[in-house]
Amino acid sequence: MTVERAEVPVQPAEDGMRPSVTAQERSEASARARAIREPLSRLLVGDQRLVVVSNRGPLSFRRTRADAWRAARGSGGLVTALGELGRLAPVTWVSAAMDAGDRAAGEALATTGDASDRLRQVIADEMPGQDLELRLVDVEDEAWRNHYSVVANPFLWFLQHQLYQLPYEPRVDDSLIGAWRDGYAVVNERLGRAAAAAGGSEHRPVILLQDYHLYLCAPAVRTLRPDAILMHFNHIPWPSVEAWQVLPQGMRRAICEGLLSNDILGFQTDRHATNFLLAAEAFVRDAHVDPSGRNVRWRGRTIWVRSYPISLDPGALTSFAGGPAVRSWRKRLRERLERAGRPQVIVRVDRLEPSKNALRGFLAFEALLEREPELRRAVRFIAIQSTSRENIPEYARYAAEVREVVARVNGMGDPDEQPIWLLDGTDYALAIAALQLADVVLVNPIVDGMNLVAKEAVLVGEPVLVLSETAGAAEQLAADSLTVTAADVAGTSRTLLDALRMPREERLYHLRRLRQSVRNEDLSWWLGRQVRDLAAVASGGRPPSRQLRDTTRRFEPILFG
Amino acid sequence: MTVERAEVPVQPAEDGMRPSVTAQERSEASARARAIREPLSRLLVGDQRLVVVSNRGPLSFRRTRADAWRAARGSGGLVTALGELGRLAPVTWVSAAMDAGDRAAGEALATTGDASDRLRQVIADEMPGQDLELRLVDVEDEAWRNHYSVVANPFLWFLQHQLYQLPYEPRVDDSLIGAWRDGYAVVNERLGRAAAAAGGSEHRPVILLQDYHLYLCAPAVRTLRPDAILMHFNHIPWPSVEAWQVLPQGMRRAICEGLLSNDILGFQTDRHATNFLLAAEAFVRDAHVDPSGRNVRWRGRTIWVRSYPISLDPGALTSFAGGPAVRSWRKRLRERLERAGRPQVIVRVDRLEPSKNALRGFLAFEALLEREPELRRAVRFIAIQSTSRENIPEYARYAAEVREVVARVNGMGDPDEQPIWLLDGTDYALAIAALQLADVVLVNPIVDGMNLVAKEAVLVGEPVLVLSETAGAAEQLAADSLTVTAADVAGTSRTLLDALRMPREERLYHLRRLRQSVRNEDLSWWLGRQVRDLAAVASGGRPPSRQLRDTTRRFEPILFG
Repeated sequence: MTVERAEVPVQPAEDGMRPSVTAQERSEASARARAIREPLSRLLVGDQRLVVVSNRGPLSFRRTRADAWRAARGSGGLVTALGELGRLAPVTWVSAAMDAGDRAAGEALATTGDASDRLRQVIADEMPGQDLELRLVDVEDEAWRNHYSVVANPFLWFLQHQLYQLPYEPRVDDSLIGAWRDGYAVVNERLGRAAAAAGGSEHRPVILLQDYHLYLCAPAVRTLRPDAILMHFNHIPWPSVEAWQVLPQGMRRAICEGLLSNDILGFQTDRHATNFLLAAEAFVRDAHVDPSGRNVRWRGRTIWVRSYPISLDPGALTSFAGGPAVRSWRKRLRERLERAGRPQVIVRVDRLEPSKNALRGFLAFEALLEREPELRRAVRFIAIQSTSRENIPEYARYAAEVREVVARVNGMGDPDEQPIWLLDGTDYALAIAALQLADVVLVNPIVDGMNLVAKEAVLVGEPVLVLSETAGAAEQLAADSLTVTAADVAGTSRTLLDALRMPREERLYHLRRLRQSVRNEDLSWWLGRQVRDLAAVASGGRPPSRQLRDTTRRFEPILFG
Repeated sequence: MTVERAEVPVQPAEDGMRPSVTAQERSEASARARAIREPLSRLLVGDQRLVVVSNRGPLSFRRTRADAWRAARGSGGLVTALGELGRLAPVTWVSAAMDAGDRAAGEALATTGDASDRLRQVIADEMPGQDLELRLVDVEDEAWRNHYSVVANPFLWFLQHQLYQLPYEPRVDDSLIGAWRDGYAVVNERLGRAAAAAGGSEHRPVILLQDYHLYLCAPAVRTLRPDAILMHFNHIPWPSVEAWQVLPQGMRRAICEGLLSNDILGFQTDRHATNFLLAAEAFVRDAHVDPSGRNVRWRGRTIWVRSYPISLDPGALTSFAGGPAVRSWRKRLRERLERAGRPQVIVRVDRLEPSKNALRGFLAFEALLEREPELRRAVRFIAIQSTSRENIPEYARYAAEVREVVARVNGMGDPDEQPIWLLDGTDYALAIAALQLADVVLVNPIVDGMNLVAKEAVLVGEPVLVLSETAGAAEQLAADSLTVTAADVAGTSRTLLDALRMPREERLYHLRRLRQSVRNEDLSWWLGRQVRDLAAVASGGRPPSRQLRDTTRRFEPILFG
């Protein structure tokens, strides 16, 4: 299972420990809430509920006794982003049952009575202040395995992150085709039907589909509810037409047509949205693409293609960052750094997986130490890494190769004298503490849908941000970061040195602008723009969000000062 | 060195053996020659010579005694395509000296006297009927090695054919940057200066630059001759912006700006041309791209971006195919097939290298034999393969993996009973003979600039063409081929069966259309359109060629009958 814990702020567990929020922050927060509630009230009629559909739900369940339940909150980016939606609107959240515990909970929730009530109370305790109803859809093990472990991960994930070595992989064979037909399509159909049912019969349902697990979900809904207002948001990159040409024609057309069964398609960046328009043009025979209007006419409907860069909740993050767990880690890290002679600190926080490009990050650092040997003592590279999907051989191979480079750089010696400190990425408080102490934060993925570490880093700490131009976050943050090309070890190495040597006033100048950007375009802005666009579509209008950023050109070297 | 012998028809050595050419063919050929000569006469003033620049020249030289030379004609696609240009116009061909023999020849040609005259006679004998002057530019070994064996091959080749596994490769490190600066840039500068000198001082020089070895050549010419008419033709694919984002910013901008120093940029397909326009938009800050006009305004000039799909010389190919060398091979192959019980024949002809995708081709055949075991006797897969660049580890690894699959399919047994026959691809006559006997020709590259085997196959034989949609040739031929997705082993396997079972009348219907397409858009058409566009630019006009094909949508499964 994907663990993205280190990337996304979880809600602080210690509410009592929050530092006081300023009056201005409070008033901004309530203005943002209004900016969501107002279009929501236009979108939903009477007691109508918003329907959210995702592969994995916000909670996972374990039955501890016959009628007692324990619920654990997920930590993925998607779940965190949507996890507070129930405070703003009544939400019915449809997802697949991931295991026996979920399945039992799903059955209990479908009934009435004491057992069901107790379970609902557990959910309410775990997600307080929300009007949230969960539906857990049961799927047979075999279909589920094919959907999740064959098609979605790794196949679509690898394809959309350009991780394949094309001469050898992927091999689209009968077993993959079978997994698509009997797994991915089946689970999508099942979730689509559940979503249509969750929409109820009184009103025109409003349904938000999430991510690459659900490309075929909208047609299943549309068949049952032609009047539904459907939006699909894609959390991961949408690559170029060439990348999609790896898929058999039937499969890629099914994906595009599945998405075109929605009313709005949301992507993380304008580049991904443009790539989708080009894909629709290339792969869907009867689609009429309007590049300047950013829409597609297909079979009598108009589909709007927009970017909504995802973000974080600055209030929640700064509260957590000021809490005791982070403070305790900060103290321990400070003591270690003290013992090491107060070096400058480079930090990276990510899952140890091929798209994150830790390998070239460490190679760049190695090249830097070779060029400037005195930095062996004067700099530490703190890498907060969580292992990820190590059951996929490609992930295990990558992790081994990364560890080999780290071992080579560190050589023998006292842990505190080693240039690279590898620390456990499953502790989110540790990650935040490290970001607080960073002089430089390195975010150099090969490609990334967004990458929230870049946004967290500038809110909780004061680092120079070294950012891959192919991270989704670059569309918003590149102008005030030092951008690098993911494959460019030499350039990354030089940029790390530039970052370490950047004068404080320059660093703070860019930091102020980065913070402003992240605060302005925060999680509620992300959600608010989607709701506003949905309300516009519901009333027969054109979604107002049509921001287009000048993207790649921003990736020119920036001039400071 | 690249050997593309198997892909491109060399001129028949046995002129006396040519079958008679029909009167209609003769008149068409002379009409084509006129279509080139007329704009050429507008382009070149008086005794002005056309300048062609390529990394490798049309001949390689060996000094056999102090003043005796032997010249060998190159077999690459580029050299073959341009090899007869000297029949139509006076041509000065500038290229790099590849070895000591070339270097000595280059020195001799730069002098006058007996030795020089004898060498000129050798050239005239080897390329009869041409007004051809060769200039061989001497480059230091180290710069040459960096240019050719580090930057151009494999780096740019791998990048443009999408052969890298991005989490690991490429690693753009100081040594690559050094090879770029001290090798690639140096060789380009050197060839650019030689080209400007070759242009003479009387007239506005007209210079044709060839392929990915010469991206930085035009600026060197432009500096010396701002008035030059410059065209760059790119023989290999130009991939998407994402693929280019592997390069450091400075490098990819230098490449784009180098190309924008030309007046016309030629690509094999509209898709590659479109990709270039998107790259210029993304990477060159001050470029103004006009997508519908297919041009770029940059620093006061207009650069026209066009596609000129390369082709072959049908007359020369059919002559060669009717000659004794091919006849002899055809007879031997027929006898072997007779012994094998007259099976149906699938043929592939290519270099054994990762972009050609032989691996998945054989896997698809293996899957077919598993599904239809009776085909083990009823079908033979004749693969005419030449090894290629086996000094590059990645090529050796690929070749080993291919051979393993072949060995698995063939198992033990009599060579004639083995389903796959691997034959030596360095004998062009054998390749043509095999294509003549083919029921199905499989051309399934991952990506390919053009792929001339597809065009040869339909001219010399009567096969069903199974064609990868990502071969450049698909833009012209997909509508009458069975198209496959390169990664789709299952689909390729099914398509091979469809092809084997296609009724004869269907096959011939499509074959007629394929032949017509290849004959209409032949090598002289390719050259004539370039010359016509150059003449238009020279007189201050707009190049008339602006064909845009409906590309990817053609890759829908076609309906026969």
